[in-house]
Amino acid sequence: MNIDFKELANKYQTPYYVYDFDHITAQYTELKESFRARKSLIAYAVKANSNLSVIKHLATLGAGADCVSIGEVKRALKVGIPSYKIIFSGVGKSDDEIREALKLDILLINVESAEELNRVELIAKELNKIARISIRVNPNIDPKTHPYISTGLHENKFGVDIDTAKRMYIQCKNSEFLEPTGIHCHIGSQLTQLQPIKDAIKIVADLVRNLKAIKIELSFMDVGGGLGIVYKDETLINTYEYAQSILDTMFGLDLTVICEPGRFIVGNSGVFVTKVLYEKVNGNKRFVIVDGAMNDLIRPALYNAYHRIEVLNDNKEFSDCNIVGPVCESGDFFAKNIELPKTTHNDLVAIYSAGAYGFTMASNYNTRGRVAEIAVENGIDRLIRRRETFEDLIALEEEFIK
Amino acid sequence: MNIDFKELANKYQTPYYVYDFDHITAQYTELKESFRARKSLIAYAVKANSNLSVIKHLATLGAGADCVSIGEVKRALKVGIPSYKIIFSGVGKSDDEIREALKLDILLINVESAEELNRVELIAKELNKIARISIRVNPNIDPKTHPYISTGLHENKFGVDIDTAKRMYIQCKNSEFLEPTGIHCHIGSQLTQLQPIKDAIKIVADLVRNLKAIKIELSFMDVGGGLGIVYKDETLINTYEYAQSILDTMFGLDLTVICEPGRFIVGNSGVFVTKVLYEKVNGNKRFVIVDGAMNDLIRPALYNAYHRIEVLNDNKEFSDCNIVGPVCESGDFFAKNIELPKTTHNDLVAIYSAGAYGFTMASNYNTRGRVAEIAVENGIDRLIRRRETFEDLIALEEEFIK
Repeated sequence: MNIDFKELANKYQTPYYVYDFDHITAQYTELKESFRARKSLIAYAVKANSNLSVIKHLATLGAGADCVSIGEVKRALKVGIPSYKIIFSGVGKSDDEIREALKLDILLINVESAEELNRVELIAKELNKIARISIRVNPNIDPKTHPYISTGLHENKFGVDIDTAKRMYIQCKNSEFLEPTGIHCHIGSQLTQLQPIKDAIKIVADLVRNLKAIKIELSFMDVGGGLGIVYKDETLINTYEYAQSILDTMFGLDLTVICEPGRFIVGNSGVFVTKVLYEKVNGNKRFVIVDGAMNDLIRPALYNAYHRIEVLNDNKEFSDCNIVGPVCESGDFFAKNIELPKTTHNDLVAIYSAGAYGFTMASNYNTRGRVAEIAVENGIDRLIRRRETFEDLIALEEEFIK
Repeated sequence: MNIDFKELANKYQTPYYVYDFDHITAQYTELKESFRARKSLIAYAVKANSNLSVIKHLATLGAGADCVSIGEVKRALKVGIPSYKIIFSGVGKSDDEIREALKLDILLINVESAEELNRVELIAKELNKIARISIRVNPNIDPKTHPYISTGLHENKFGVDIDTAKRMYIQCKNSEFLEPTGIHCHIGSQLTQLQPIKDAIKIVADLVRNLKAIKIELSFMDVGGGLGIVYKDETLINTYEYAQSILDTMFGLDLTVICEPGRFIVGNSGVFVTKVLYEKVNGNKRFVIVDGAMNDLIRPALYNAYHRIEVLNDNKEFSDCNIVGPVCESGDFFAKNIELPKTTHNDLVAIYSAGAYGFTMASNYNTRGRVAEIAVENGIDRLIRRRETFEDLIALEEEFIK
């Protein structure tokens, strides 16, 4: 990554998010190439970073979209991802969302419960359409990641167990409005171990074979996403081995593989850049206070997530500190007890690995406008979302003052 | 609270936040009355709920505003809170914010570090204005609340210690651009014990007396906010005893008391109303899936906060469940392991005590539009913020697609 953070700060002010689109290209290509022996669709998990220009960039590369709300589906369509490359997942689809997804004729609806399948059938009937169904199987596998981003255990809300899935496929087969088309499993996010993925996919592949035996032929196997990235010192899953072990498990099955990476594609493309306002010492504790805050990047507060942090000055005098934002909560921190150089007013601070689950989770807490988003591609920067103004923040409530 | 949630759901759809403005009036009045023996200013902590109509309602009652960003200052001014009732607090004020606060001639800038005081002095000089200063003292008192909302310990980023405060007041006295005007302390949020507050205020009052001895005369003592509310079964601080013990501590001092309640005023005025999409059972675990999610109300995920939850149906068949939203994270829950009646599609669910730190912390995660906010006053409902559309969500990035 070769980005001049200072130049961008002068041009766009701070805080800002910047994304290296060339890194996105490289990550997408690496994964796509790993599956080259097979029909495959890399469906980008839009929730990781849903900026329209980011999705557009991936659309141009040939990606599909894994969406978890009708809003995400619309984002994907807006920037030219064809409907036949769009999947709609999620445990809580409203009737309106299902209706719209059917009208938009997307590739698959990933159904996550028996009740949901009934709603989809009802709505498909009402619209006189055939709904292409994929069922999310919960394989009851521990992915060994953060509890909030682990999704493949029965104690999680996601998917259905094997027996339920089987009954649901039979319901699809017997319905004139449902077409059993795919199968899906996803066991969690930021995965760094291959074995749980293999175990999960084996369970799913066995189900596909069982279904085949009762004349239910699926066309797509969605193996989920969740490939980890390096935040600190993680050892990653090799993408070639990943693809290979998936393809091995699918031996003898004529299925298109769908893979849904989000963090893997955009996580390390992004940097959150903020500037130092003050330093202070309370008791024995040194605090570096920056102009970015938990409303901009909530991962440290919410998941206790680690992000590598670098102060962009030449000072060699390091000491222990907490780096915190202006929001009036003790939970508003980016890191605790880290060694950083002595800073002065307006020094820039880069917070790395912020391309996924950064801006998408941002809020206006403390009436702080959301920051600017910038893309850098081939060494050229451009704005891809402008900074929010006070007027933007009050726009939807101003007219109601009485 | 006498609100017909079903009628509101029909009129405004779900999910929504509704606020009982009569409850807000009652809470404000109770606190204001408790201080009636004294000159006092109830400065509403805007960060708790910053909807313009909420602030306007409090402005009409005579409230001031405690603000933590220039955006909040502008919100307060926008709805008619006079500048002489507005305070600007926070550990990380940018130069632009300080500049604007001085131009707007608000009552006090609550300064939280020695470095910040230098910035304020510099900027006041540049504008040739006199900055009215209050210094936030960190009394090193444990408020016995959630670590994220406890603020009065040296290990927190807030305020300065007594000795630093004293030096800063002397700096103010010696500067032609700074006027030592007030003193401030705030030890945390959702406080349910009086003793830590008394201890903190005693420390501050002693400092005021010491300053008086060296001819630094302050006019305002800001005793912070943080009065708790009932979420579950908390025993609250009696407001009369609260006021009385503050006034006792200030014996002999001619100071206007400023109090900064946020949650106390609005917390129990608000209800988040969502509807049931599906029920499902995974393994032995029952899940009730609703159309509201962590992006709408993040307190359960972020603080593991308890909110009382009621399903609005007549079913008497209760069983244990998790109540969760559609967002693709296991952290997206409103409650775990609670007894709720069996539900059916479209049943309404009321999540209580959601008036504070609810909507203000909402995000667009998963491309979910922020919900509608509704006020009820004298039995009459009205919209005070309209629901976000897909077009609202993409407005600031659409023009940059290339």
